[in-house]
Amino acid sequence: MKIAVDAMGGDNAPQAIVEGVMLAKKDFPEIEFLLYGKETEIKKYVTDEKNITIIHTDEKISSDDEPVKAIRRKKEASMVLAAQAVKKGEADAIFSAGNTGALLAAGLFIVGRIKNIERPGLMSTMPVIGQPDGGFDMMDLGANAENKPEHLVQYAVLGTFYAEKVRDIKQPRVGLLNNGTEETKGSELTKKAFELLSEEPSINFIGNVEARDLLSGVADVVVTDGFTGNAVLKSIEGTALSMMSLLKTSILDEGLKGKLGALLLKDALRGMKNELDYSKHGGAVLFGLKAPVIKTHGSTGPDAVRHTIRQIHTMLETKVVSQLVEHYENQE
Amino acid sequence: MKIAVDAMGGDNAPQAIVEGVMLAKKDFPEIEFLLYGKETEIKKYVTDEKNITIIHTDEKISSDDEPVKAIRRKKEASMVLAAQAVKKGEADAIFSAGNTGALLAAGLFIVGRIKNIERPGLMSTMPVIGQPDGGFDMMDLGANAENKPEHLVQYAVLGTFYAEKVRDIKQPRVGLLNNGTEETKGSELTKKAFELLSEEPSINFIGNVEARDLLSGVADVVVTDGFTGNAVLKSIEGTALSMMSLLKTSILDEGLKGKLGALLLKDALRGMKNELDYSKHGGAVLFGLKAPVIKTHGSTGPDAVRHTIRQIHTMLETKVVSQLVEHYENQE
Repeated sequence: MKIAVDAMGGDNAPQAIVEGVMLAKKDFPEIEFLLYGKETEIKKYVTDEKNITIIHTDEKISSDDEPVKAIRRKKEASMVLAAQAVKKGEADAIFSAGNTGALLAAGLFIVGRIKNIERPGLMSTMPVIGQPDGGFDMMDLGANAENKPEHLVQYAVLGTFYAEKVRDIKQPRVGLLNNGTEETKGSELTKKAFELLSEEPSINFIGNVEARDLLSGVADVVVTDGFTGNAVLKSIEGTALSMMSLLKTSILDEGLKGKLGALLLKDALRGMKNELDYSKHGGAVLFGLKAPVIKTHGSTGPDAVRHTIRQIHTMLETKVVSQLVEHYENQE
Repeated sequence: MKIAVDAMGGDNAPQAIVEGVMLAKKDFPEIEFLLYGKETEIKKYVTDEKNITIIHTDEKISSDDEPVKAIRRKKEASMVLAAQAVKKGEADAIFSAGNTGALLAAGLFIVGRIKNIERPGLMSTMPVIGQPDGGFDMMDLGANAENKPEHLVQYAVLGTFYAEKVRDIKQPRVGLLNNGTEETKGSELTKKAFELLSEEPSINFIGNVEARDLLSGVADVVVTDGFTGNAVLKSIEGTALSMMSLLKTSILDEGLKGKLGALLLKDALRGMKNELDYSKHGGAVLFGLKAPVIKTHGSTGPDAVRHTIRQIHTMLETKVVSQLVEHYENQE
């Protein structure tokens, strides 16, 4: 099992990335890591050289680079070389905390789509509040600005495969994100998608779900178009962050009383933060490609990298992508 | 100034509605209220009869009724009679906490659209965290399942009028909700809307805004299509509610320590809740109609009714709708 790592992607690269890889090595000593980037910088954080190969390159893609151009022009960039390793069969999966758009482009143009999958989408496992181990898989979170009803059905199948194989959920409940739960609700896109999802035999479609019920665990897999998915993801993140900061200032405004109260509630507040932290489920999968292509937040730290390596390990071990390739290649 | 009130709409009607009207009467003794619904039930909560007229009717629209059918068939329903009073000029505005779809239908089919406004939208003032009096006006929150770029420009104009006249904000910053801040981002709808908004002289367009920055006050007016607006609104509400309940259980899980901590933080937590409660800004306006048509949550209590009456009072006093009628009637 070989994972190609873009060691230069992300705000804290290469330190956070390499430190995370070192943590993951302890969990999974059998994984071989190919680290792409500046050798001297990467080496600083390599505490155990076993199963680590550094492939030196000076070039990297920055967060400001225009994605498609960057992929085409920066042919020696760490991300591009990592993607090419997957294409050539030298690695089984790629991981990056770098420029999301560029990774999407590298995934599409270098790793390549699974046959018959029209529009790979971005999928994350989001938290279910009140269930520390719970979560739901949502896609598309923004790989596409526009989707057709047929794409949403493919997302339902992809999400079902992921929830079953990687998250070990039997017959995962698939919900269609809509502006009401009634069958007749929605835009032209969601009405047609509802119809197609109802007819799809390989999934357990439970109907429409509303954005306000997502964090309560109303479904195991939630499908939506990339524009809406992106807006919903950012709304959830923005609201959670705003509330945490509101909580903090509300406490600080109370002076000594607030400090004392906060001290007593330290464990409770930490527990709350942990429950909201969905990086424990790993990163976002660009799903629908011939190999696992995984993205984490640019601000990712070593722990999140470690969780993501675990996720990739499970994806490779369960062969979820190879099974999808088989499923879709046999379709005509 | 006369307000037609659907006294039978909402989960706590008529009690919460009539009690709220009684509170509002103290703030605005000059408003005349027309209360539509069961006279004997309404009378129970009328503590001051001055400027109160009860128009008895036995019929009402329930939350399960199919909106358009209900409006057409239940011709004596409290909501329908209230809307007709506005149409006939017997009242200046209508307020209901009942079936949202039915109120939208009553607004469109009975009160009627402003000339040249194609698709009235639902607008609410949402909270800005860290600014107790701050807020942003967002529309369309779901009156339409589908919108054209031109509609979003009309929402920008409507929202600007509202922010200026009702909320007293000079040159309100108008943002387009999009999946990135760069000009080139988005779906076909948002790309075209961006272009049209940039050319609209009567607004202060600041470009694209992302859902994660809404609660930080990135814009005073945020425009989006009804499907996305609905999903974002529900994501924000759902996340805020989930977090409040997570905070509660996290505290309870800590036993005595948690209880003590919560006691010390009581004021802080209450302050936090108040800041999130956007009912202080009033209800949702079905905007683009010939008169103010205002909806509040079905679970609304007397205080929210009071805030909503204040909002309607400001809308009538500032003549925001009449000015919009003038603005749009002169367009050809």
